[in-house]
Amino acid sequence: MFRNAMPHYEILSEDALETLDRGWRRIVSEIGVEFLSPRALELFRQAGQKVEDDCVRFDPDFILEQVAKAPRSFDVQARNPARSVHIGDDAMVFGGVYGPPFVREGDVRRDASMADFRNFTKLAQSFDALDSAGGVICEPEDAPLDSRHLDMTYALQTLTDKIYMGNVVSGENARDTIAMSEILFGGRAAIEATPATISLINCNSPLRWDDRMLDAQFEYSAANQAVVITPFLLMGAMSPVSIPASLAQQIAEALTGITLSQLIRPGCPVIFGSFLSNIDMQSGSPCFGTPESAIGLLCTGQIARRFGLPVRSGGGMTSSQMPDAQAGYEGLMTMLPTFLAGINWVMHSAGWLEGGLVASYEKFVIDVQVLEMLQHEFTPLEIDEASLAFEAHDEVRHGGHFLGAAHTMERFRTCFYRPFLSSSQNYDRWLRGGGSDAAARAGEIARRTLDEYEQPPLDDAVRAELEEYVTRRRRELGD
Amino acid sequence: MFRNAMPHYEILSEDALETLDRGWRRIVSEIGVEFLSPRALELFRQAGQKVEDDCVRFDPDFILEQVAKAPRSFDVQARNPARSVHIGDDAMVFGGVYGPPFVREGDVRRDASMADFRNFTKLAQSFDALDSAGGVICEPEDAPLDSRHLDMTYALQTLTDKIYMGNVVSGENARDTIAMSEILFGGRAAIEATPATISLINCNSPLRWDDRMLDAQFEYSAANQAVVITPFLLMGAMSPVSIPASLAQQIAEALTGITLSQLIRPGCPVIFGSFLSNIDMQSGSPCFGTPESAIGLLCTGQIARRFGLPVRSGGGMTSSQMPDAQAGYEGLMTMLPTFLAGINWVMHSAGWLEGGLVASYEKFVIDVQVLEMLQHEFTPLEIDEASLAFEAHDEVRHGGHFLGAAHTMERFRTCFYRPFLSSSQNYDRWLRGGGSDAAARAGEIARRTLDEYEQPPLDDAVRAELEEYVTRRRRELGD
Repeated sequence: MFRNAMPHYEILSEDALETLDRGWRRIVSEIGVEFLSPRALELFRQAGQKVEDDCVRFDPDFILEQVAKAPRSFDVQARNPARSVHIGDDAMVFGGVYGPPFVREGDVRRDASMADFRNFTKLAQSFDALDSAGGVICEPEDAPLDSRHLDMTYALQTLTDKIYMGNVVSGENARDTIAMSEILFGGRAAIEATPATISLINCNSPLRWDDRMLDAQFEYSAANQAVVITPFLLMGAMSPVSIPASLAQQIAEALTGITLSQLIRPGCPVIFGSFLSNIDMQSGSPCFGTPESAIGLLCTGQIARRFGLPVRSGGGMTSSQMPDAQAGYEGLMTMLPTFLAGINWVMHSAGWLEGGLVASYEKFVIDVQVLEMLQHEFTPLEIDEASLAFEAHDEVRHGGHFLGAAHTMERFRTCFYRPFLSSSQNYDRWLRGGGSDAAARAGEIARRTLDEYEQPPLDDAVRAELEEYVTRRRRELGD
Repeated sequence: MFRNAMPHYEILSEDALETLDRGWRRIVSEIGVEFLSPRALELFRQAGQKVEDDCVRFDPDFILEQVAKAPRSFDVQARNPARSVHIGDDAMVFGGVYGPPFVREGDVRRDASMADFRNFTKLAQSFDALDSAGGVICEPEDAPLDSRHLDMTYALQTLTDKIYMGNVVSGENARDTIAMSEILFGGRAAIEATPATISLINCNSPLRWDDRMLDAQFEYSAANQAVVITPFLLMGAMSPVSIPASLAQQIAEALTGITLSQLIRPGCPVIFGSFLSNIDMQSGSPCFGTPESAIGLLCTGQIARRFGLPVRSGGGMTSSQMPDAQAGYEGLMTMLPTFLAGINWVMHSAGWLEGGLVASYEKFVIDVQVLEMLQHEFTPLEIDEASLAFEAHDEVRHGGHFLGAAHTMERFRTCFYRPFLSSSQNYDRWLRGGGSDAAARAGEIARRTLDEYEQPPLDDAVRAELEEYVTRRRRELGD
């Protein structure tokens, strides 16, 4: 797990923060937020909030009281304790892409399969820059719909020893995820003591929380499992075309969702989520890696810290259909601000392509390369007398070179980050080596990594119990 | 010209700055700096510095006294006054790539020609994000060596109405640039009043200033033309493998070069230059877009501001041989920190490929796309009551969309930056449109832009005088 001890890049003034504060307060109190869940509405009613049909009008100070019950930071355990993570403070935790129905491998774009899901899980296990394969890395269209959450969870639990995300399609799926986590971690008490899953609860923005996701949220929060409460904002469609208006809406949605979790189980772990970009106003297409999304991201980090909450945002987003130059610059247009903003939980860190419709093998490797570079870049520079290396200057003096200097000899193995994908070969050497571009080389690295993948060990009895659970539940679900 | 009113991202503590301060003071006083120019040595001797052979050992406080004579900021005039620029403060001024002997266009990589030089000049004229074509955009190998500076300067003066850079191959070339600028701007007094050129004076790092560049520096500074005093540091080769040691060397080299300019003509315009990256310690190849170069860049902005000097650094650097994903992420790995660091004069902003050996048509367009995005991103967000757009939330309320909201209708044309290269088309539409990647689309845009290029008007008498000068001087130079 990476710790980002560099300064935060904060662009909102105190005045701006106060204006946004007035914005969300007015939204939650005057317009209110819909919760399509009788259980949720009942909790809010009992807590003294104004409930009318499905709409809850909030006292903003009540929201802040509930938000204050959430932990500022917390741990999520992995079955390999060395892979456990901290969420919050200066920790940055990275998970793979989430949700694409399609896969791209070289020139082929096709429906995602369970084999792809397993492949991406193995890739995530193989790269240290990633803390998690994520959750629904791709939608395995060849697995039965009602029981594929079991297959995905089993793959995440057995093919990696890193943390994983919970399924959120329904309360029932959430219960399955929790039950399988109990098996893996040795019982309910073990996962209640330290959460073993993070689950993504998306808002049906604007200002509506849907029943199925809320059912999942009830299960996870009751079990003290972490939830990422995420407004889903493509400005122009799900939020206004003004960034400040969208930020106010984002706060309103995130904080009301978090309030629900704190009513379900006070003190349960939550993350202030953000998924904020914009549409193209001519075509209506979602756009990623945009200047507007980067600005929103920088603001979001600052806003979440103000509420004392861990924050999710960022990733390697791009609209590009190919792992090309656009994918390169758009991905970094989001990922570099992710570091600047001090984001704690970063979904879509690797593999995202074509607006999130495609999980790409090549882009996965490209993203890991970028992640490694940024993790080096955001490691504070030590500047002291020794690092000035006066003796090196004194040795080389004027017009020479430092290649053979003693200072160089001592440090040349580790002094600079050495990329595994980027090429700095001279032209002739590069041509002789095949003259392939970064995407082609990334594809080769993906294939080699899968060939060399080794499954992390798992106790046979635990594996058998998980398999038994999957088999039984699949039968019950009629698949 | 872009003004970057966003906060600077500063990562050096006061302690770190003081350590670096001790570093450069010790280098200039104990090791000294070589100036391979009797004129320069004589100036330093007269000013009371210790001169022994070609080496000058400085009193650091003397250096600071001279540096204090340099202007904190200054203007550079273009022949179209609307294209004149400010160097320093929050201004960011962008010029094209500088120096490549090769050109890449699609799959073809070849020697650069004068036709390429003119093409890149036209491209730079065509994109508003660029303030200058630069100087030696590529080395036109088909133009006679001794007089090609005349052809390049004439092209820059006539094909664009933006600012341009001066030739620095020799004092004679500098005198030609100045003479041609006098013709274009109406005499010596006009260009002495407001500089008309910026010229790149590179150090032969470590700690040596060569005669030919110094000869050019003498001409430009005496004529009150701006010079960019630039240590040329590829860490591991021209400077130590430790970033702090390289930063101390960079300060020592930049400030001693600037001191020379201030002795030549007190108060003449100078820029604290930085060209700082690292080599691959296994192959010795220069690497660009590296984490180390980004860290160095952030530090450099902060350091130059401490000395009250405008600063040059950054660009769209990459080691990649192709305009691929690597070129995309490496270019932005340098260009985004360029904005964060508040760099004032940005060379290599468009077209840089393959470690600077290649000027690429496709990369030029990709870089302009990235520049436009960053110029939008680094425009401060206005957050006030109106931008909260409460009426939009009140109109759309729960679970709807904002596509047709009044707030959207009012602003949809200008609310988001609309890229000219990046594609967010859906897959089928993109396929129907040819399914081309960003590099291929960039190539098309370059060709279309050249087709549509219109030469900016120039007074016939001035043009004739320039042509006459070029013809006469070419004859004198024997080409």
